[in-house]
Amino acid sequence: VNTPRKMRRYAVLAPGCFTGRAAKTAHGVIAYGREPVVAVIDPALAGRRVCDVLPHLNKDIPIVADLEATFEYKPNALLVGVAPPGGALPDEWREYILAALRAGLEVVSGLHEILSDDADFAEAAYTGGTSIWDVRLPPAPRLFTGAAWNVKPFVLLTVGSDCSVGKMTVSLELIKAACERKRDPEFIATGQTGVMIAGKGIAIDRVISDFASGAVESLVTSAEADTDLLIVEGQGAINHAAFAPVTMALLYGAAPDALLLVHDVSRHDIEPLGSPILPLPILVKLYEALTAVVKPAPVIGIALNTSSLNDEDARTVIDGVRKETGLPADDVIRFGPQGLFDAIAPALTEKTKAVKRSV
Amino acid sequence: VNTPRKMRRYAVLAPGCFTGRAAKTAHGVIAYGREPVVAVIDPALAGRRVCDVLPHLNKDIPIVADLEATFEYKPNALLVGVAPPGGALPDEWREYILAALRAGLEVVSGLHEILSDDADFAEAAYTGGTSIWDVRLPPAPRLFTGAAWNVKPFVLLTVGSDCSVGKMTVSLELIKAACERKRDPEFIATGQTGVMIAGKGIAIDRVISDFASGAVESLVTSAEADTDLLIVEGQGAINHAAFAPVTMALLYGAAPDALLLVHDVSRHDIEPLGSPILPLPILVKLYEALTAVVKPAPVIGIALNTSSLNDEDARTVIDGVRKETGLPADDVIRFGPQGLFDAIAPALTEKTKAVKRSV
Repeated sequence: VNTPRKMRRYAVLAPGCFTGRAAKTAHGVIAYGREPVVAVIDPALAGRRVCDVLPHLNKDIPIVADLEATFEYKPNALLVGVAPPGGALPDEWREYILAALRAGLEVVSGLHEILSDDADFAEAAYTGGTSIWDVRLPPAPRLFTGAAWNVKPFVLLTVGSDCSVGKMTVSLELIKAACERKRDPEFIATGQTGVMIAGKGIAIDRVISDFASGAVESLVTSAEADTDLLIVEGQGAINHAAFAPVTMALLYGAAPDALLLVHDVSRHDIEPLGSPILPLPILVKLYEALTAVVKPAPVIGIALNTSSLNDEDARTVIDGVRKETGLPADDVIRFGPQGLFDAIAPALTEKTKAVKRSV
Repeated sequence: VNTPRKMRRYAVLAPGCFTGRAAKTAHGVIAYGREPVVAVIDPALAGRRVCDVLPHLNKDIPIVADLEATFEYKPNALLVGVAPPGGALPDEWREYILAALRAGLEVVSGLHEILSDDADFAEAAYTGGTSIWDVRLPPAPRLFTGAAWNVKPFVLLTVGSDCSVGKMTVSLELIKAACERKRDPEFIATGQTGVMIAGKGIAIDRVISDFASGAVESLVTSAEADTDLLIVEGQGAINHAAFAPVTMALLYGAAPDALLLVHDVSRHDIEPLGSPILPLPILVKLYEALTAVVKPAPVIGIALNTSSLNDEDARTVIDGVRKETGLPADDVIRFGPQGLFDAIAPALTEKTKAVKRSV
């Protein structure tokens, strides 16, 4: 599984849509990817740089008009990390993908549509002597076995008050902080963007529900060598009527020793369903009550996304959460991840055990 | 979806294995199916009757040696309701299925293997002018929308202390009791055996985890006309590390108004994982804590499987559970479903509402 391979050098395909919300995956790979993005294809912005149009990404990467113009930067992979408008693959994108494959670039796709099932793409990959990586293609079915209960590294799982509150970002920031403190952490990717960033992992939301816990378990057990700390990217939220099944797969399948709760302070309802986001102390209790029956995992800290506030208000809100929950709390983007990591670090050593009947 | 069609008359395919555990689905269809089983194919038992070899099913159905011998009983469908030994379809079974299709019988299969993907079976179905119903084939992906929160009938969901404790059986027995009391109940099937029994439904364990809640919701919303009580077959258990994702899909996707907890008193551990089965009062609290954050649903009764005990011990255990939980409790097989149904009936009218933010 982990055979060495050449580092990817990505060209990102985002014609006409690089700065939009649909390009969230591309932005994630640019911000956090282990493998470099060497150029972005978006004719509407050609000639500019990524740092000009998306300053918060802070990356000096050229934006060009077409595939040929990327070649001087020597990409060896094309990243299709933008959800196409309307869901279906536009004809224009097909041409980009075919041309990239014929030119020998690997195509890496996070689309729901499985590109390697398409006969034209398969033939073009054969012609170019390259391959397609469909990031969302699920692995072979496997049930949860309990093997995750016995892994050696400490397992920290991020959990959320809702979807898209920043669980992946917080996980990646804590990985950075852990490295600075000479821990040897490993990021476990469980969503399509995370998988592209890490270069491996499984998009759990695409796994058949019977096998979702088993898929998470396989990620944890296959990563246990050579690390003392696994930080698992969480998914969804336990109070989210649509995505709680995916959350449960993470909560039991990863067999965490501790949880870190992630919350966006600007959110009050679970959109578009309208269920309220729970008060944080209630969420903490609910996550702990669930893990308590299989393998107890306390919530040891709270990561807040305060991007909707100014510095002063952010500090007030963070202090309030600390008092309300009695837990370390911080915004790891605004104030950096080191403070929160150091506050929870003492808790990142004590392994918990799965509950077994004592009779 | 609900177009009228001819009632199925099943021949059950179970060569050499009719009385074994692997034939659980076939037994369920014989015991509870709306459509009659007219013959069973098992050469090892040919000449005997179902009531001779499985007295508890209490059905006088002939067992014959081969497909031809079923024809005098005029089957129009072949039920492949037995898991083949080793998982793969034996060659002998292929011949039965091909012959049945060529003879114009519909083939109904609960196998993991999708029979309609097989070119030989597809051709035989075309030749015979018939079709294949792969019961486990998942429906088109659809996310949960919240529509289930507004259905008119009362929704009762069975939940469990473990897998295979009798949630489907209890649901079907309560349907019988409700009919006797002039309610107009509808059974919502969510597993392969339930789907065969009802003739419709979705095996939720085979749905992609992102769409599992949405699939359950579609069952509830499409059944709401012409009934005042939906009884939804539950799956798995919230404390089961492998299957809790499926359980969550039912718990939120069905948007129940109340829960009925099902427990087998002979079980102490979740096999083969070894996690303890929780004390019933703790299980009740956990199920109620989860539903409370989306749409509150109290546990209104407990159905106990006491088949491991004699009558006297069963009564003692049932009384103990009543005292321990303060809830109606009974064994609906040993003592019939009417007692438990009448005890919970007053609670089967008050609809609950999804939690909405009051701000």
